[in-house]
This record gives sequence, C-alpha cells and structure tokens, in this order.
Amino acid sequence: MTAYKRHVDPATISDLTIARLSIYLRCVDRLIEVGIDTVSSQELARRFNLNSAQIRKDLAHFGEFGVRGVGYNVSELHRCIVEILGLDSERRLLIVGAGNLGTALCHYSGFSGENFLVVGILDRDSSRISDPTPAGLLVEDSVRLGEIVKQRQVDIGVITTPASSAQSVCDQMVEAGISTILNFAPIRVRAPETVMVKSVDLKIYLEELSFHLTQRNRNR
Amino acid sequence: MTAYKRHVDPATISDLTIARLSIYLRCVDRLIEVGIDTVSSQELARRFNLNSAQIRKDLAHFGEFGVRGVGYNVSELHRCIVEILGLDSERRLLIVGAGNLGTALCHYSGFSGENFLVVGILDRDSSRISDPTPAGLLVEDSVRLGEIVKQRQVDIGVITTPASSAQSVCDQMVEAGISTILNFAPIRVRAPETVMVKSVDLKIYLEELSFHLTQRNRNR
Repeated sequence: MTAYKRHVDPATISDLTIARLSIYLRCVDRLIEVGIDTVSSQELARRFNLNSAQIRKDLAHFGEFGVRGVGYNVSELHRCIVEILGLDSERRLLIVGAGNLGTALCHYSGFSGENFLVVGILDRDSSRISDPTPAGLLVEDSVRLGEIVKQRQVDIGVITTPASSAQSVCDQMVEAGISTILNFAPIRVRAPETVMVKSVDLKIYLEELSFHLTQRNRNR
Repeated sequence: MTAYKRHVDPATISDLTIARLSIYLRCVDRLIEVGIDTVSSQELARRFNLNSAQIRKDLAHFGEFGVRGVGYNVSELHRCIVEILGLDSERRLLIVGAGNLGTALCHYSGFSGENFLVVGILDRDSSRISDPTPAGLLVEDSVRLGEIVKQRQVDIGVITTPASSAQSVCDQMVEAGISTILNFAPIRVRAPETVMVKSVDLKIYLEELSFHLTQRNRNR
C-alpha cells in the first residue's frame, strides 16, 4: 500500500535526499531491466551498496511506500520517484556560454533526451555566434537572453561561461524570470532567495577517487 | 582532542560518505575564509544546511574528532579531511577523448589546479592529434596510451569518448595498469573488481532542479 504525498514543502527536504532519490531511480531502473517486481529496502541497499535505513527515511518524506515485510512494488516506486522529481514534465534548458563545456552539454545525452531539452545556446562572443553545435543548434547572441527565455519558455538556465562572466549572466537570467539555475562556472554566484542555484563541482568526483587511491596505498 | 585513523578499510566507507567529506571540506574552507576557529557539528549543519548527526557519523569512521561540548578545531578538521581524501598528494590525470568535453576538462580549474594535474589528453581521431588544447597540452594519439601511462605515472584515467568507445578505452586503461577511472561516457563500463570506476551522471543535477520546479509549481 502506497500513500504518496504529491505536495511537500521543499524546504524540509535536503539536497542530499534529492540526490539520493536520483540514485534510487537509477537502481529501480536496473531492477526493472532485470525483471524484479518487488524489493525490500534491505535488498535494495544490499544490491546497490546503499543504506536501508536511509532509503526508508528518504522515502518517508513523501508518504508511505511499500508493505511492511514485503517491500516496495518496483514499478510503483519508479512512478512515484519520477513524479516526485517532476520527470514527467518537459524541462526546457538554455545554456549560456558556447565554449567547449557549453557545446559538450548541448549534445550530452542526459541534457537532451527524455524530459530535458536544450532550447538554446548563447554566447556574447560574436565569432561563436551562428556556429552550429554538434546537436544542430545555432549559437545565438546572449544580448537576446531575455527575449529567448520568454519566447521558448525556459525552465532552467545553465551557466557555462568563464568565472568572470558568471555573475552577470546569473543576474540576466534572474532578470529574465528564470528561477532555477545550474552553474558550472568555478565561482559562487549570488541570486535572490526565491531563485534556486545549483553549482556543479566536478572536483568532488576526483576527490572520491583520490580517497580510494590513498587508502589503497596506505593499506598496502 | 582529535585521534584520527589514517588507515581505514575503504570497503567500509560508502561513496556517499566520501562525497559528504568533500562537501564538509568546502564548508570548512569557508569557515577559514571568514575566520572561524571552532565549530560544533550543530553549527556546521545549521550554517550549510547539513545534518549534524550525519556529520558526526561520517567523521566517526575516521576516528575521534572534536571536543564534546566545544566542537571541532576548524584548521585541524581541514587538515584531517585533506589527508583522508589524499588531497596532500599530487594526482596525475590522463584524459582520453579530445572532443568538447575532454577539452573542457583539460582547462577546468578543479582538474588542473592544486593537487590534480592533467598530464595528457589523447584521441584516436588523427584530425585532432596535435591540436593544442586551451590548457596548452597537445592532443596525442591514443595508440600511445600504455606508454604514456607508464612514462607520466598516471593515477586517474578520465574517459570522455562517445559511449561506443568507452568500454574499449576502459579496457586499455586497465591493461596499462590504471586502477582508478572517472567515466563521463553515458554508458556503464565494466572493469575488474580491483579497479575503481566512478561514473559521472550530470543529469542528477537537472533532476534536483526539476524537483524544486515541480514542488514550487504544485505549492502555488
């Protein structure tokens, strides 16, 4: 029996809980691939090296999932996580900064598939404007940001400029009415409290690998 | 009083704990910037929207940190996390795949600064070979992978090829003796158990933003 709350106060849910929901979704995808219908939190934890108490606690924010002693219905759990994360709606992305990273994200499968859709890529450098990206989008002039956000109903702004322009791009995005921003520039950008800014720090992945290298060498 | 264990069994530490240590390190960096010497787990949690019990639990894997009722010495905590993550040693990276993403990572500040150092970028496409990257490295032929790994003492292999070549690049890296791999290709790569492969899924960040967009719209 699943009693699932569609409405929660996002302020009560930590970013880490949301990141774990994304991980659970990938695990559930794999269970579906291999044809498993029901799974307990213990089994889910064991298979994917997670923490079963954490799984139960994370899901409890969103209602009652699963049947005690039986477990979760895999397809129902999948559907609920998709709904919680809003992955049943199209999300339109605008990338600002058409250097290597912006261009790479333009044809990154996770950014242009299923419910996410890159609807534009802008740059202020006139030599890059009209340069077709591998994904077939033309680079447009970033002076048109405000107009493009409205015309194409942009949901998420993606900043891939150098650090020196990131704050001004963020300001322009906020001014244009974008309320969710993904920042790849290596600088903290400031935005009003009503705007959600997520900064990506790829170094975190290297630090995790560094930990394993270190422990392996020390335990030798 | 800090009694900190330099040797732990990495199998007992979850990837999420390590990812959180990276986050704690960034928080501690900021405390140092603003001149704070001592911090309790509660205060650390409050300032950075973390979970204080989780902080204590994560650190407990590595020994006894802080003084009950007083808190952590900030600079000591910083030093210990740096040591735990092995960020006091140089880590040499080899990027394979000199498309937009590989080139972007070549001059991404987190990948080429402090203790991480990109020592080479390879591609099998002869039209890209010798193409200088913005970071000043020349793209070299990926047939030289084995030789370059040994000569330049590569610690971490980074896969930025299309999905179709990722497994064969991974196999070549393992064959050349690389034991830690960061995979950006949108495919699961298989490696022997002794090799640590971390796959980066940038879509997780979009999913987090999608959650906030969804809840905001539903709560309107």
